[in-house]
Amino acid sequence: MNPDIMRERRNATFDVEKLTHILDGGPEKTKRRRKIESMVLSDPDLKEEDPSFLSRSENYDQGVKKSAQIILKLREYGIADPEEIYYFKNIVKGNRHESMRLHFTMFLPTLYGQCDPQQSRKWIPLAESFQAVGTYAQTEMGHGTHLRGMETTATYDPATQEFVLNSPTVSSMKWWPGGLGKTSNHAIVLAQLYTQGNFHGLHAFIVPIRDMDTHVPLPGIVVGDIGPKFGFSEVDNGFLKLENVRIPRDNMLMKYAKVEPDGTYLKPPSAKLTYGTMVFVRSVIVGEAAFALSKSCTIAIRYSSVRHQSEIRPGDPEPQILDYQTQQYKLFPLLAMAYAFTFVSQYMRQTYRRISGDINQGDFSELPELHALSAGLKAFTTWATNSAIEVCRMSCGGHGYSCSSALPDIYVNFTPTCTYEGENTVMMLQTARFLVKSYRQAKAGQQLSGIVSYLNEPKHGQLLAARPTVVDINDLASLVEVYKLRAATLVELAAKSIQQELQLRKSQEDAWNNSAVDLVRATDAHCHYVVVKIFTDKLGEVGDTSIHSVMSTLALLYALNGIKNNSGDFLQAGLLNVPQVLQVSVRVKELLSQLRPNAVALVDAFDHRDKTLNSVLGRYDGNVYENLFAWARRSPLNSTEVHESFHKYLKPLQAKL
Amino acid sequence: MNPDIMRERRNATFDVEKLTHILDGGPEKTKRRRKIESMVLSDPDLKEEDPSFLSRSENYDQGVKKSAQIILKLREYGIADPEEIYYFKNIVKGNRHESMRLHFTMFLPTLYGQCDPQQSRKWIPLAESFQAVGTYAQTEMGHGTHLRGMETTATYDPATQEFVLNSPTVSSMKWWPGGLGKTSNHAIVLAQLYTQGNFHGLHAFIVPIRDMDTHVPLPGIVVGDIGPKFGFSEVDNGFLKLENVRIPRDNMLMKYAKVEPDGTYLKPPSAKLTYGTMVFVRSVIVGEAAFALSKSCTIAIRYSSVRHQSEIRPGDPEPQILDYQTQQYKLFPLLAMAYAFTFVSQYMRQTYRRISGDINQGDFSELPELHALSAGLKAFTTWATNSAIEVCRMSCGGHGYSCSSALPDIYVNFTPTCTYEGENTVMMLQTARFLVKSYRQAKAGQQLSGIVSYLNEPKHGQLLAARPTVVDINDLASLVEVYKLRAATLVELAAKSIQQELQLRKSQEDAWNNSAVDLVRATDAHCHYVVVKIFTDKLGEVGDTSIHSVMSTLALLYALNGIKNNSGDFLQAGLLNVPQVLQVSVRVKELLSQLRPNAVALVDAFDHRDKTLNSVLGRYDGNVYENLFAWARRSPLNSTEVHESFHKYLKPLQAKL
Repeated sequence: MNPDIMRERRNATFDVEKLTHILDGGPEKTKRRRKIESMVLSDPDLKEEDPSFLSRSENYDQGVKKSAQIILKLREYGIADPEEIYYFKNIVKGNRHESMRLHFTMFLPTLYGQCDPQQSRKWIPLAESFQAVGTYAQTEMGHGTHLRGMETTATYDPATQEFVLNSPTVSSMKWWPGGLGKTSNHAIVLAQLYTQGNFHGLHAFIVPIRDMDTHVPLPGIVVGDIGPKFGFSEVDNGFLKLENVRIPRDNMLMKYAKVEPDGTYLKPPSAKLTYGTMVFVRSVIVGEAAFALSKSCTIAIRYSSVRHQSEIRPGDPEPQILDYQTQQYKLFPLLAMAYAFTFVSQYMRQTYRRISGDINQGDFSELPELHALSAGLKAFTTWATNSAIEVCRMSCGGHGYSCSSALPDIYVNFTPTCTYEGENTVMMLQTARFLVKSYRQAKAGQQLSGIVSYLNEPKHGQLLAARPTVVDINDLASLVEVYKLRAATLVELAAKSIQQELQLRKSQEDAWNNSAVDLVRATDAHCHYVVVKIFTDKLGEVGDTSIHSVMSTLALLYALNGIKNNSGDFLQAGLLNVPQVLQVSVRVKELLSQLRPNAVALVDAFDHRDKTLNSVLGRYDGNVYENLFAWARRSPLNSTEVHESFHKYLKPLQAKL
Repeated sequence: MNPDIMRERRNATFDVEKLTHILDGGPEKTKRRRKIESMVLSDPDLKEEDPSFLSRSENYDQGVKKSAQIILKLREYGIADPEEIYYFKNIVKGNRHESMRLHFTMFLPTLYGQCDPQQSRKWIPLAESFQAVGTYAQTEMGHGTHLRGMETTATYDPATQEFVLNSPTVSSMKWWPGGLGKTSNHAIVLAQLYTQGNFHGLHAFIVPIRDMDTHVPLPGIVVGDIGPKFGFSEVDNGFLKLENVRIPRDNMLMKYAKVEPDGTYLKPPSAKLTYGTMVFVRSVIVGEAAFALSKSCTIAIRYSSVRHQSEIRPGDPEPQILDYQTQQYKLFPLLAMAYAFTFVSQYMRQTYRRISGDINQGDFSELPELHALSAGLKAFTTWATNSAIEVCRMSCGGHGYSCSSALPDIYVNFTPTCTYEGENTVMMLQTARFLVKSYRQAKAGQQLSGIVSYLNEPKHGQLLAARPTVVDINDLASLVEVYKLRAATLVELAAKSIQQELQLRKSQEDAWNNSAVDLVRATDAHCHYVVVKIFTDKLGEVGDTSIHSVMSTLALLYALNGIKNNSGDFLQAGLLNVPQVLQVSVRVKELLSQLRPNAVALVDAFDHRDKTLNSVLGRYDGNVYENLFAWARRSPLNSTEVHESFHKYLKPLQAKL
């Protein structure tokens, strides 16, 4: 163990193990998680090559291998609980993805949810036994967000009782679905349905794309990999071109909408229920944000505690770089954010579970709010995390650029969350739509409940009026209040911008588009308020005094740093005055020093195994340098002493000159 | 040609060609640049495989091949002017790097600059004929910024008249130098010199590391590649461990310091001159920032003009995504920044040239200011560009993640500029040191000249006093003034923070460290002011009315968006009042609409060839989709219809279940 990092751990003021229990949701959960992780770590079948050293094709190969092993091992170990599967997969995957992820997250759930009983009997056993390996093909090369824009067609032919599927243009090709390029032999294809000469919009069809025995693409199917990407090299995101592909009538998923043998179309009942799935998926993504951020902070903070550089006081030995205020200012607000987002993700899952219960009992009242909030929080947390990972990486100096740090991998494999499952700007505007609607309802005298109830408050009308500045910047409850009023101010500003545009005789839609920048800002302020509030509320659940103390410091740093970075908003709205804002800056610096002794312990509490981090810089034992050398020696370029390019180009060059 | 992008070009209000001339520095320069680019484009020897499809080893191989070809072709074409070499290399390299870059940028210049006459006669012909291929090995695994911390030793042995070089620890290994791992047979090694029992600090030594004939590492040399990184896969950044390596006495570079045969050390004269080189290197990096940013904006804006998505008005066809205000708000401020940084880089080069002239005449007076400014501007522009490239990438939706967009490549190959040639935070603090020193001089009554003369102004003492708010937010001169006063305010705030820390009996060094966050902020404000000023000054040189008009809009957007994003600073300092800040937000939105018709023309004016961009999304002709498909089909995973992993894992999996 590196002596610096040992000393850091000795200096911590709280019991790391207890904080880990809080993060896991209780000591029993921690125990079970660790047991599952140990199974993986001690299983020789689950050892892998470092993906950094592999080619794209080798990466994909290893990805498929791991996916297959996960399936077999979960059965062997008898792990079936979703949370336990999550633990298991997390540690097997490291910083990479599962090549067959969409089979589990989209293909199977869609079959479970949208097959009629007869279809279930046929398809579910095939999918569960991996005879049918599947994916979900919605996005097209030219169409993502806008479902009505999709071009793939499914035209019913009553003569043969088949659907004929086509990709009529280049831009209509299915493009991006994970596992589509090489792995899957089936795809659930979303296509615009035509029957009896009428158009009925997007529906889901099970399309066999490869021979189930030979895996060769079927006639009329042009399928392949879309090529290398930023990350995800183990995943075969694919394209699919359909050329008069005929599938039986009962390959249309018929639990809701139906096409009868003669081509008669039967409409589905209301589609409200899909809301719930979206909320769930977004809460998972917020969890991924917290996870990626906590990993990045772990790596950067541990490394900063063992790396020595330059000098603070001349003549002294080089200090740990964690002693530089600038380094603390880069990392500690992100550490606070990692905790904040962890609690937000817990909150979202709990709320989802609670509301799911209500929905099952027919109560949909809270769904619109949660749906809107989840969109904004997905965007807010993934954007923030996206930038934060890069700050962590760059805080490690040169070594952060090396794949051995794992930070490049964490970044490229996280960043797509900003785009998939709802492009972030679209998500922000979705939440804004809810906020503006709520604002208007409140203006019209309706009493709002839930998290937007602040729009009820009488004060929010006085955008520019000086507010009483009795804010205590050391009191979290007071800061929650300030964030709330900022959100109210910015929601109102956006709503007024729309109003002004309408007065200029713009259409409702153009007024919306011309206010979009303000709307995004309003959602941002709303989400920021929610995060500060959830973090603050969480403190109430923490009994242990020393943990409560350090968590309060983190929450305060999160809140005050947010004010510092957005001080214009708080000043503009008259929520804080100039001396207070100056005081906030000073206080942030004090909080950095205050957190310094607990920094390593706070990342230790996330309890990421070395296997999960896969980072030489983030090793628990802090023995960075010798392992950096050992890692480098395994670089493929070192497999020979003299690279062939010497003989091919350098030697001849000398001869030619 | 895609009809959307054709229409965009028709709608432009200015002559693109004339703006290109301004960027190049005159029509003759444009002509010459294009002629050189056409040489490369039409030369079949310089065709290359898309590096996205290659393995690390193949990438390195292609990199060495390109480096060798560049050398031969430059001679063949008789190109010798540095600027023309720059054009030539830029277009050959695309978004990648030159594997032998350090031979040209560090090895040869160091030999030219630090050999004594006898050494020059020996080494320069060897290096110029590539018998000696070299690199510059300063950074160690454990040591970067702090030269005194370096551990590599060179101990003189008068008995054999040799230096004995050693890497005494793992952390002392040379680590990171480009070309060190596999390409070079020599390295200029920076090592701590010991002779006659005395320590004399870091000196440069020419160390043969590989046999010049066989390329096999020499005895005592452990050399290799440091492994895969974020980008730079064509470069063999290397490690070098020296185990009692003996080199002749005259392999120490002896133009300045000397060690005589008996071991007597002769001190060098003052080392002031190396300042100039650093300024030059940083101005080159600012140019790289402008270049990378202009490429990224070109790709994102062209793609946004041909991509259609969703709807603004129901029932209308899907609009170009460039019509969304949010998309304009992401991209146009970055476009303005690309122009700003281009002009900053021109300014730095001109100033460097002018001051170099002065220095040759013995006048060093402007050097400290330029040295300090160049440090801050290097950090300011590379950080901003680093984030901006990612905003451009994410503004392209899913396709931005594909390597076909080139944006991942541009990012990973640019981001190291934030760390190399002076880590950005260190750079910011270096400039801050100059600013605080200047501030104190002004306080002490000294009259400052040059760019920090604003610290002289009597007003800057009134940090919290209300200022007269006669600012015209539509007048650039007025905005330059406001930025200047903001900088003055923040320099003073940082200086006062140090003062306060000193009053708490902190040492000078601890006071500095405890104010580092404020110091970085002060430099940021200073650089921001300088950039706004240079952009504004540049407008004075633009004669063409229509270009002047669009450039003014860009400059205004750059300035006002900066105010919007830092409104707290301007409010705090009393430089703007709340209504003005609100007005700035509204004005920014208006400027977005105003720029909309010229967006494509403004990126066209950068005149990046398709070969330079290497981006399917950024193609000049806008024909994105068919080329995306063509590109994907070339993915290595598509070389077979059925990937071997099917037979290895998927088929057996089905059998096991």
